[in-house]
Amino acid sequence: MAIKILVTNDDGIHAEGIQLLSRVLFEDGRYRIMIVAPDHERSAVGHAITMHRPLRVEQVNFLHNPALKGWSVNGTPSDCVKLAVEALLEEKPDLVISGINRGSNLGTDVLYSGTVSAAVEGVILGLPAVAISLTGGKESSDFIRAAEFIRDLIPPLMDAGLPGGTLLNINVPPGGNSIRGARATRLGTRRYRNSFDRRTDPRGLTYYWLAGELVEEEEEANSDVRAVGEGYISVTPIHFNLTNEAMIPDLEKLIARVSRR
Amino acid sequence: MAIKILVTNDDGIHAEGIQLLSRVLFEDGRYRIMIVAPDHERSAVGHAITMHRPLRVEQVNFLHNPALKGWSVNGTPSDCVKLAVEALLEEKPDLVISGINRGSNLGTDVLYSGTVSAAVEGVILGLPAVAISLTGGKESSDFIRAAEFIRDLIPPLMDAGLPGGTLLNINVPPGGNSIRGARATRLGTRRYRNSFDRRTDPRGLTYYWLAGELVEEEEEANSDVRAVGEGYISVTPIHFNLTNEAMIPDLEKLIARVSRR
Repeated sequence: MAIKILVTNDDGIHAEGIQLLSRVLFEDGRYRIMIVAPDHERSAVGHAITMHRPLRVEQVNFLHNPALKGWSVNGTPSDCVKLAVEALLEEKPDLVISGINRGSNLGTDVLYSGTVSAAVEGVILGLPAVAISLTGGKESSDFIRAAEFIRDLIPPLMDAGLPGGTLLNINVPPGGNSIRGARATRLGTRRYRNSFDRRTDPRGLTYYWLAGELVEEEEEANSDVRAVGEGYISVTPIHFNLTNEAMIPDLEKLIARVSRR
Repeated sequence: MAIKILVTNDDGIHAEGIQLLSRVLFEDGRYRIMIVAPDHERSAVGHAITMHRPLRVEQVNFLHNPALKGWSVNGTPSDCVKLAVEALLEEKPDLVISGINRGSNLGTDVLYSGTVSAAVEGVILGLPAVAISLTGGKESSDFIRAAEFIRDLIPPLMDAGLPGGTLLNINVPPGGNSIRGARATRLGTRRYRNSFDRRTDPRGLTYYWLAGELVEEEEEANSDVRAVGEGYISVTPIHFNLTNEAMIPDLEKLIARVSRR
C-alpha cells in the first residue's frame, strides 16, 4: 500500500521546492502524492487562517510531470491543510509534509513560519507532519538532496510513529555532498538587532521596514542553529503542550492574593 | 513609579475592548498606558508578521479620554508589539497586555489567535505579557469587569514575576457579578465538526467557507474550557519551550537507521 502524503508549503504551488519534493517522492514509487498549496507566496504568515472571506480552489497541472496533480488555494498554508483534509481529499493522508522552503526555519523563528504552521495544522488534525527547509542553497541540486533525505526518512518514521501532538522540523544546509549527516536537535535561539528601518517617503511621511541583523550567540551543542552551522541536517521534534505546568502552583497563590482583596 | 504598560489587541485600535481596558488601567493611577494596535480587525492571523511591505503608523486621539494617546499600525498584532518596542516607544514597557478580545481564546485555538500572538511577541522580546479575552459577553460592563480583574492582578503579578518564556492567557466568562472567581488552568482541547461549508457562486463556481461546529468533549477538571464553562475566569500559563525533549533519544535511533542505508 502506497503511503499517502499531503504536500504543501508557503512559497506557493509553483515554487521549485514543492515541485522537486513532489517529484522525488513520486518517482520513488512507494508514495502517493497529493499537492494542495497556496496560489502564491505566503511567508511569515504564522498560523493564520482565513475566516472572513471564502476560499477558492483550482486544479493545477505540472508540465514537468503530468502524473502529478495539485490544487492551489487562495489562502494560507494552514488553510491548505485544513481544506485538503476536511473538504478536498477523498482519503485522509497518512502524512503531511510542508516544504521544501527556500530559507531556514530555525529556533524561535518557527513561531512566524508559514512552512511550520502547515505542519502544525496537520498535528491539530491528528496527522503525522514534517516541515522541511533549505537554510541557504537555492540550486535544484540542493532541493533534490533535501527531498532525498526526507524520502528515505519516511519509511522508518511511519514505522516508528511520531508521539501525539509532535511534528518534525527539518533544516538542510547547503553543500550537497559536503553535508556531514543528520542530527536530532533542539530549537535554538534567534535574536535580531535593529529590527526596523525608519524611512521617509517622497511625500515626507514616515514608514518602517522590518529589517534586523541576526545576532550571533553561543548556541548549546545540540541546537538546530548550531547543527546547521556545522554542516549537519537538523531534525527537531516540536510539540504543542503549551501549558507551563511548573507555574500552576505559583499561579494559584497569585490568584488567591487577588481574590482576597 | 508607574508601571508602563503597552496595550494592543487584534480587534483594532477603535474596538471597545482595548478602549475600556486602557481607560480602567489609566484611571487606576498606578499605570502608564501606551496603546499601539492594528488600524482594523486582524482576527485569526496567528503569529503573522509583515515583511514584504512597509508599515505605517498614525497617532490616534480618543474623544472619551483625551489624556490617553495611541498609535495605529497597518499591520498585525505581532507587528504592533515589535514596532512599539523596537521603534516607537521611548521607554521599554514593563508589561504587554493584549485585549480585551471580543470572543474566547481557549485551548488549542490559541495557536490561531492574533490576541495571544501579540503577547507571544512580548515574550520573544523578553517582556512579561498577558492576553485577555471575553468568552461571550459584549456589554460594556463585561469589558469593564474583565479590565478590573486584570487591573487588580498586575501588582501581585509584577511582584511575583513570570517565568521566562511564559505568558498568561486569561478568558473571562459573561455574567458580571455572577462570575464565581478565577482559576489557574491548563489549555484544554477544542475540536470542530464539518469545518468547511461548500457553496456555488452565481457563476457556477465552487467556494468554501470556514465554518465548523464545536464538538463538546469531556474536559479535564482544570482545563480552561471547563473553568469558563463553570463560570470561572481561566488564567493559563503558556510557555514556548516547543522542543519535545522526550522524543530526542528515539529520534536519534531513527536518524541512525536512515544514515546506515
